[in-house]
Amino acid sequence: MRILVTGGAGFVGSHLVDILVEDGNSVVVYDNLSSGKPHFLQHHLDQGSPVEIIKADLLDLDTLKENMLGIDIVFHLAANPDIRLGTEVTDTDLKQGTIATYNVLEAMRLAGTKKIAFASSSVVYGEASVMPTPEDYGPLFPISLYGASKLACEGLISAWVGTFSLQAWIFRFANVVGERGTHGVIFDFIHKLKNDPTRLEVLGDGNQAKSYIEVRDCARSMYHLVCTTDAAINYYNLGSGDVCSVRRIAEIVVEESGLPEVSIEYTGGSRGWAGDVPLASLAVDRMKDSGFTPTFDSEGSIRHTARALIEEIGLHD
Amino acid sequence: MRILVTGGAGFVGSHLVDILVEDGNSVVVYDNLSSGKPHFLQHHLDQGSPVEIIKADLLDLDTLKENMLGIDIVFHLAANPDIRLGTEVTDTDLKQGTIATYNVLEAMRLAGTKKIAFASSSVVYGEASVMPTPEDYGPLFPISLYGASKLACEGLISAWVGTFSLQAWIFRFANVVGERGTHGVIFDFIHKLKNDPTRLEVLGDGNQAKSYIEVRDCARSMYHLVCTTDAAINYYNLGSGDVCSVRRIAEIVVEESGLPEVSIEYTGGSRGWAGDVPLASLAVDRMKDSGFTPTFDSEGSIRHTARALIEEIGLHD
Repeated sequence: MRILVTGGAGFVGSHLVDILVEDGNSVVVYDNLSSGKPHFLQHHLDQGSPVEIIKADLLDLDTLKENMLGIDIVFHLAANPDIRLGTEVTDTDLKQGTIATYNVLEAMRLAGTKKIAFASSSVVYGEASVMPTPEDYGPLFPISLYGASKLACEGLISAWVGTFSLQAWIFRFANVVGERGTHGVIFDFIHKLKNDPTRLEVLGDGNQAKSYIEVRDCARSMYHLVCTTDAAINYYNLGSGDVCSVRRIAEIVVEESGLPEVSIEYTGGSRGWAGDVPLASLAVDRMKDSGFTPTFDSEGSIRHTARALIEEIGLHD
Repeated sequence: MRILVTGGAGFVGSHLVDILVEDGNSVVVYDNLSSGKPHFLQHHLDQGSPVEIIKADLLDLDTLKENMLGIDIVFHLAANPDIRLGTEVTDTDLKQGTIATYNVLEAMRLAGTKKIAFASSSVVYGEASVMPTPEDYGPLFPISLYGASKLACEGLISAWVGTFSLQAWIFRFANVVGERGTHGVIFDFIHKLKNDPTRLEVLGDGNQAKSYIEVRDCARSMYHLVCTTDAAINYYNLGSGDVCSVRRIAEIVVEESGLPEVSIEYTGGSRGWAGDVPLASLAVDRMKDSGFTPTFDSEGSIRHTARALIEEIGLHD
C-alpha cells in the first residue's frame, strides 16, 4: 500500500513508519517538523527504504492535496504534542488539530482516498465516572483544549464516513512513552534531573495515575487493527491495561538515573495542571480480543522508556 | 441578568428572547442576520423592551469581545441552520459552528463571563444503537458535518469548563418546529405545495422517524433548566418524548393545507439525503425529571407548526 503518515517524523509517527516499511509498504511522511525530527527517519533514507519526506504544514491545503494523490490510506498522527499548551495559547489545538484534520479529510475527499486511521486520545473521556473506561463510554466531556480537539477530529472523521463513505480507524491512545520521546512526564523528569541532579520537582501530589503504552506497541497495534478489522468505523482504546502513578514514575526515573541522592518534591494538588486528569484508566479488552498483546505493561513501558531516554538525552555527560 | 443570545434573531433564538424578556432579563441579540430576521424581534423594539440588536458575525472576534463585556450568561444558538448544506460545501459548519463557538468561548474568557448555554443537537448521537437515546450514550459518531460541528462545540465548551472554570448547559435538541420556522421538513413541504398544489415529493421512503419539539417548549425548557440546575456541566436532551415519521408529517401538512387532492410521492431509500439519520428517538426523562413538561407531543408540534407556517407562508394567496 501507498500510505501517507501525517506527523510521520514525530515520536509515534516515526515508529509507525518503521512498522509500515518493515511490512513492505511505501510511505509518504507529511510533517512540518515543528516537533518531528528528520533524524528519526534517517535510517530509512540511508537504507533506501521507500520513504519520502514532505516538509509541509497541514494548514497548507494545496500541498496536502497534491500529496494525497494515489494514497491508499492516511495515518493521521500530526497534532500539537503538548497538551498543556492549551492553558496559555487557546487556538493551538483548534488550528493544529481540528482545522488540520478538516484539511486532511477534504484532501482525501478530493483525491478519492477512502481510508483513514486517526491517533485520538483517552483524553476524549474527560473525567470519566467508569474506570477502566470502555470505548462506548459517554458522555464525552474532555477537560483540556487538546482533548476538545481530539473529540472534534473524531466527529469530523465520523461525519466524513457517514457523508462521503470513508472508512475509519479511531485509536484512543493511553499515554504513549518510549524511545524518541520529545515531551511528556518521563522526558520532563530526566531534563529536570539534568539541570539539578539533587532534586526532582513533581507537579501535583504524585497520585495522578494513568494508563501507558510503549510506543512500538502502540504503532504495532494500530497497524494490526487496520489490517484485521473492517467496519465503517473501527474504534479502539490502545493501552497496556493497567495504570502507573506519577509518584512511581518519579521513583523509576530516579532509580534508572543512578543518581545517588535525589529528593523528590511534590507541588501538591490532585492535578499537575489545569486540564490534567487525576485518573485515566483505559479498558483495552477490545484491543486484546483483536489478537494483539502489548509487550510491556504500564510500569514496564515507563522503565524501558526511562532507560532509553536517559541514554538519548545523556543525563551523565 | 444581562444575557447575550447569539443567533437571537433566528428561529429558536427569537422565541428564547421572548421568554427571557418576559422574565425581566436584559438581552443583547448578536446575529449576522444570515438566516435570522429582525422582524422576529420587532415587537420588542416596538414595546421598548430591554433588547439590543447587534448585527455582526461571530467570526468577527473584536466585535464579539466588545459586546461580551458585562454579560452574565451567553445563550449560544447561532449556527448554520441547514444540516444538508454539508454535503455540498464542506467548511460551512466548521466556520459557522466550531470556529464561531471557539470565538464565543475566547470572548467569554477575556471578558470574565462564566456561564454558557449551548444549543447542541441529537445529531451528535449519529446512528445510535440505543433508542430512545439517553444523554450518556456513547460512542458519539455523528454522520453529518453539522453533527460533527455540534460535537466539536460540546467538546470546546467542556474544555473551557475544565480549564477556565466556566459553567455550562448543553442542550441536545430534537427537531425543533414551530412559528417563525425558516427551514426544515414542514417548511419545505409547504413551499412545495405552494409551487405545485397537486403533488408533494418526499425525500426518502417516508419512514424516517424523529423526535420533535415545539419551539416555544424548547425555549422554555432551556430557560427552566438554566434557572434550576447548577452542575459544572448540565446536559439534557430536549424533545417531546416520542417520534413522528416523515410520512405522517406529509399527511398532516396536506390535511392542514385544505388542498383537495394532493398526491404524496416518495423518492425512496431509508435516508432523505447523505447524512440523514433514518431514526432518531430521544430519551427525555432527565428533562421531565427536572420538572419541565412540554405542551406538545411530536405529532401535536407538527400540526401546530403546519397551521402556523401555512398562515405565515401564505399557501392560499
